[in-house]
Amino acid sequence: MNIKHYMQQVGQQARAASRMIAAADTGIKNDALLAIAAALDASRKELLAANAIDMAQGEKDGLDSALLDRLSLGDKGIDAMIEGLTQVAALPDPCGEISDMKYRPSGIQVGKMRVPLGVVGIIYESRPNVTIDAASLCLKSGNATILRGGKEALHSNQAIARCIQQGLEQVGLPATVVQVIETIDREAVAELITMSEYVDVIIPRGGRGLIERIANDATVSVIKHLDGICHVYIDDQADEEKAFNIAVNSKTHRYGVCNAMETLLIAEPIAAVILPRLVDAYRNKEVELRGCEKTCALADGILPATDSDWQTEYLAPILSIRIVGNMQAAIDHIGQYSSGHTEAIVTESITRARQFMTLVDSSAIIVNASTRFADGFEFGLGAEIGISTDKIHVRGPVGLEGLTSQKWIVFGDGHIRT
Amino acid sequence: MNIKHYMQQVGQQARAASRMIAAADTGIKNDALLAIAAALDASRKELLAANAIDMAQGEKDGLDSALLDRLSLGDKGIDAMIEGLTQVAALPDPCGEISDMKYRPSGIQVGKMRVPLGVVGIIYESRPNVTIDAASLCLKSGNATILRGGKEALHSNQAIARCIQQGLEQVGLPATVVQVIETIDREAVAELITMSEYVDVIIPRGGRGLIERIANDATVSVIKHLDGICHVYIDDQADEEKAFNIAVNSKTHRYGVCNAMETLLIAEPIAAVILPRLVDAYRNKEVELRGCEKTCALADGILPATDSDWQTEYLAPILSIRIVGNMQAAIDHIGQYSSGHTEAIVTESITRARQFMTLVDSSAIIVNASTRFADGFEFGLGAEIGISTDKIHVRGPVGLEGLTSQKWIVFGDGHIRT
Repeated sequence: MNIKHYMQQVGQQARAASRMIAAADTGIKNDALLAIAAALDASRKELLAANAIDMAQGEKDGLDSALLDRLSLGDKGIDAMIEGLTQVAALPDPCGEISDMKYRPSGIQVGKMRVPLGVVGIIYESRPNVTIDAASLCLKSGNATILRGGKEALHSNQAIARCIQQGLEQVGLPATVVQVIETIDREAVAELITMSEYVDVIIPRGGRGLIERIANDATVSVIKHLDGICHVYIDDQADEEKAFNIAVNSKTHRYGVCNAMETLLIAEPIAAVILPRLVDAYRNKEVELRGCEKTCALADGILPATDSDWQTEYLAPILSIRIVGNMQAAIDHIGQYSSGHTEAIVTESITRARQFMTLVDSSAIIVNASTRFADGFEFGLGAEIGISTDKIHVRGPVGLEGLTSQKWIVFGDGHIRT
Repeated sequence: MNIKHYMQQVGQQARAASRMIAAADTGIKNDALLAIAAALDASRKELLAANAIDMAQGEKDGLDSALLDRLSLGDKGIDAMIEGLTQVAALPDPCGEISDMKYRPSGIQVGKMRVPLGVVGIIYESRPNVTIDAASLCLKSGNATILRGGKEALHSNQAIARCIQQGLEQVGLPATVVQVIETIDREAVAELITMSEYVDVIIPRGGRGLIERIANDATVSVIKHLDGICHVYIDDQADEEKAFNIAVNSKTHRYGVCNAMETLLIAEPIAAVILPRLVDAYRNKEVELRGCEKTCALADGILPATDSDWQTEYLAPILSIRIVGNMQAAIDHIGQYSSGHTEAIVTESITRARQFMTLVDSSAIIVNASTRFADGFEFGLGAEIGISTDKIHVRGPVGLEGLTSQKWIVFGDGHIRT
């Protein structure tokens, strides 16, 4: 296969399809989502058979158990995809919303209309469920999608793609609204991220290495989702009970997620009171603790933290702890080490809360609640395609609105510039 | 000078300064803008002397008269910069605005806060006034700025930079909030557009070549302002008088601007009526006409348009004209040839207007008014740093809001995830 030629064709088809889906009524898009769900339900045998081929190959290739776990579909996985499609169908359609219409002194009326981005390219690792997640959010937001999943999931993804295309055609939409790239050749990715005439934005989902490589090589705009090195700062004006609950929950509710706390900052005046209680709680949950000198002095058996600890997204039952002189020192620490994902402050002082909220430059700033709330469902987006640590276009959880843009609309009555 | 080392230092200083300016009150930022205006006024002699050096060198190097014209400052140019600063000081501050605060079922309260992007890099050609335009908009929107002007304007830009820094220091802000790169070495640009740890967004202002080169090489996000190949479509349900006025104004009000019409599309049923009147009007203004076969058949002495005409931003008294079968054919032509800047429809039909508005994918869609309205002042932004033909982050005229982003803010009362 000539990869460049193949990808150009995929791109042209996506651009043409993007015009059709952008013009489709909300009802048609919802019908398509439900038709895809029905097609998945009717194709369980084929889906499980395709997934079995990928799993057998993955085992043969010696994939580790975490990877195999993510690759595995099963009837429960199919149920979850069907449930996801039904939920996205129920969300309000962001497209077409007109806002801020105002008359200008010239007499023209100016406002904005929310519109799809056009063609979205999604590059992800070997999790077949992402194929449905990404396709459904892009479809509902009126975009055409080009999906490139991990090579280990190729058969599963192609079986899912057939269901998607069946659902699209059933409601009279072109199957090319969602295209799954059929080759595992890496050149296809190189082509995808530089076809700026056909692709409007690339969303990579996966490890830091994948995302940085794509961001470096892409000429198409990229919405990045990098690490979550999230902090909780316990202020000396914190309520002790709230601080305890939030610090425990932010670390231990789930370990392998990007909105888990990785570093706990405690104001010195309150450290002697709250640290021992927290240390006990973390030990009960078998969380390994690494601390600054002052932390180690206040509690036994804590490993000394090094500079690299402050820079690490553990995604594991490990926590680094630093005692800071005051809120400004906490803000400075966050400014230096945070990945810009989510930071929380625990304080009863409205002045401190206001300052922290203004001075900390991360995608989500949380006052007196767990960092674990930083996700699309909890924020009310209904679903998310990722959590952006970028600053332009969209920050934090990316839902349907993050997959759209706003164009200007103007009404006149024959108005001209003089 | 070690360019890489120098630029890293500029970047570090900008990042540090961005934290100061992001936290500055609106009043301080306005005071700084007015102090810069006063410094320019007090430094007229130095500014004119510096500009004279650039002009003399430019003449010696044989720059053409258009370039020299843009390079020239003069007392009128200084007046315009002072006026611009005063206007930006009077605009509302976009930063800190909190919107969409809602309680979620979990009990947390979630909303968005508008915040600066951080560090903005501006790369532009030899127009010294852009130094003040860009610096003032970035300053008001709470961003630190790194400016890289054309080498022909180096002395002028450095003299302006001294006034900016004087104004900043006068109100207690660090001079590094606005830095003008002091070397004309091209390596400085290569470094600027890849320092993603220090620079959040790059805005290139200049010709297509400059912008495409930067977009290709940058790893930092770029807000592009490419061509304006703008269309006016005269529908067969147009009011003839409005159509005539809009088609004349869109082309002839100014020729060298990106929101001027370059191609006129006319619905076939109305062409025989309106085309001869328009041809006369354009000829009176010495506009060269190039038309499709049908256009040439309806009026004498029109040159045949080639495919390359539909792809050209003339920026000159030249117009291409095409007669199309119906609105869908006009939309298809625009989809194929437009640069996505601005398109207008002239029609009395609300159904046609609604369809055109939905189906045309450009940054501004205008119904029954001249394309010349597509700019920041006319749209009510107060000032603009450019007109984005990108789809992500910001489309169309980019004002203060386009230089900001929104972060999520969350209030709880000790809430945890369960």
